[in-house]
Amino acid sequence: MDSVTRPGPTTRARVRQVSAGIVRDHRDDLATEEPLEIRIQAGEARRTVAITMRTPGADFELAAGFLYGEGVIAPGDLSSIAYCTDADVAPEARYNTVTVRLSAGRLPDLPALDRHFVTSSACGVCGTASLDALRGRCSPLPDQEDLRVSPEILYGLPHRLREGQGVFGKTGGLHAAGLFTVEGELLAIREDVGRHNAVDKLVGWALMNGRLPLGGHILMVSGRSSYEIMQKALAAGVPVVCAVSAPSSLAVDLAREFGMTLVGFLRDERFNLYSAPERVVP
Amino acid sequence: MDSVTRPGPTTRARVRQVSAGIVRDHRDDLATEEPLEIRIQAGEARRTVAITMRTPGADFELAAGFLYGEGVIAPGDLSSIAYCTDADVAPEARYNTVTVRLSAGRLPDLPALDRHFVTSSACGVCGTASLDALRGRCSPLPDQEDLRVSPEILYGLPHRLREGQGVFGKTGGLHAAGLFTVEGELLAIREDVGRHNAVDKLVGWALMNGRLPLGGHILMVSGRSSYEIMQKALAAGVPVVCAVSAPSSLAVDLAREFGMTLVGFLRDERFNLYSAPERVVP
Repeated sequence: MDSVTRPGPTTRARVRQVSAGIVRDHRDDLATEEPLEIRIQAGEARRTVAITMRTPGADFELAAGFLYGEGVIAPGDLSSIAYCTDADVAPEARYNTVTVRLSAGRLPDLPALDRHFVTSSACGVCGTASLDALRGRCSPLPDQEDLRVSPEILYGLPHRLREGQGVFGKTGGLHAAGLFTVEGELLAIREDVGRHNAVDKLVGWALMNGRLPLGGHILMVSGRSSYEIMQKALAAGVPVVCAVSAPSSLAVDLAREFGMTLVGFLRDERFNLYSAPERVVP
Repeated sequence: MDSVTRPGPTTRARVRQVSAGIVRDHRDDLATEEPLEIRIQAGEARRTVAITMRTPGADFELAAGFLYGEGVIAPGDLSSIAYCTDADVAPEARYNTVTVRLSAGRLPDLPALDRHFVTSSACGVCGTASLDALRGRCSPLPDQEDLRVSPEILYGLPHRLREGQGVFGKTGGLHAAGLFTVEGELLAIREDVGRHNAVDKLVGWALMNGRLPLGGHILMVSGRSSYEIMQKALAAGVPVVCAVSAPSSLAVDLAREFGMTLVGFLRDERFNLYSAPERVVP
C-alpha cells in the first residue's frame, strides 16, 4: 500500500473496501494534504508567516487571501507571488513554499499571526475580548438598504456549491466555499481539506481580481460557520454568509456585532437566520 | 437578537426559521465557541502556550491532552490543573484560562507550538518532512499480533458515537471523538466545535486517568481524518483510528508509516481500510 505524493489536489491510493462482509481491493482518489509555507518578502528581507496544511491548488490565492484576512496586507501591497525556487529548498518542497513579494520597502510589523488563534487581551480571553480585538481592524458592514436576497435564491445555493465541487466528487473528503452574487450567480468555488483555507482561497481570488470589498455578495460554506470563517468574511466585506450546517455561538455574536446576515442549516428548501434577517425578503 | 455567553457547552439564541416560505421565530441552542488560553507553570515561572477556540466543558482534559499531544508534557509531569483566578483576569475570562502546573522546577524548552502548524524543516516543507519531524518524538506502534477487530464491531461504532453526542443532539453543530476497546466497549466521548479539540479532550481524559498509552483501543471521529488527528492518535498510542468520512493523503501516509490501522467512510455497514488491514478480521 503506497501512495505517490505530488502537488495535485488528489492522490491515488490502494484501498480495501469492506461492505456487508464482502472484501474488495481497489484504487481510489484521496484529497491531497500537504503543508504550505507562506513567506512574505520586501526588498531583500524575508520572513515565514505561516505553515498550514492544505490541498494543493490555488496556492497563490490561499497565500494572498490568508495574508489579507489576517490583516497583514492590503490589496495595493501585493507586488508578485511565486513558488520558491531556491537551491536550498528540496525539489519536492518547492511547490509547498509560496513567497508573496510586497511593494513596500520593508516588512510590516506583524501582529500575533498564529493561525486559528486569537490575540490574548490584557484582561484574559473571552468571546467579547475576541470581538473587541477585531473591532480594531474591521468596521461593521454598511447598512445597504438595497441589499435584499430572496429565500428562493438561498434554497438553490447548496446544490450549486455541490455541483461545482470537482474534487469532492472524486474523494468525498473536502470542504468547499463558494462566492455568489445576491442574484445567485456563481463567481468562484474553491475546495480544501481545511475549511478556513477554502475561504482564504476565495478571498485571495477576489483580491487578485480587484473585487474587494465584496459588498453585494454571498459566501456559502459546505460545513459549519465558526468565529474564524466569519472573521474572514468580515475582513473581505461579505454581508451574507450561508452554511450548510450549524453556526457556533461566537459566529452569531460576530455577525450581530458587525451587521452581517448569517444563514445556517441551509438545505432541503429551508434555513435559519441568526442575524440581520431583514436582508432576506420573500 | 441577543445571546448570553456563559461557560456552558450550549448558548440560547433567537433564530428565525424559514421553511418552504413559512417564517417562524423561536429560540434555539447553539454550540458555544469561546477561546481557551492554556498556560503552563513550573515554580513561579509561567507561560501561555496556546489560545484556541473551543466548546467549554472538559477544559482541563483539553489542556492536558493538547500539551501531551504536542510533546510538551509526559504523564508524570502533571502536578495540578486549575482555572485562573488571578485578580488581573476579568471575571468573564476566568473560565477561559487554564493553568497546568508541572511537577518540574522549571518550564520545558518549547518546540514550535503553533497549533495546526508543522515544523519547517531545513530543506523546506512537504509531507515527507512532516513525517520525518514526527519520527523524532513518536515510534511506530508495536505489531501486537493479538490485536484483531471484527467488521461487526466497526459497523456498530458510528451509531454508538452518535448516541453519546449529547450536545450535538441539541445543536447539530459539534464534532465528536469516542474511545472504544477493540471489543466495542465505549470508554469516553468528547465533543467540541473543533475536531482536534475533541481528540485532545479524549487524550487528556486518558492521561488524567492513567490509561496512556492506548494500545488495544479504537479512536472514532465524527468527521474526516487528517494529518493532525492521526498525529494525536499516534502520540497517544492508539492502533486503530476510524472516521465517518474520508481520510486525507497525509493521514494515510502517516498511518502506513507508523503502523496504524486507518478506517474511513465507516457508515451504513461498510468501510474502507487504508493501512494495516490485517488487524480487521471477519
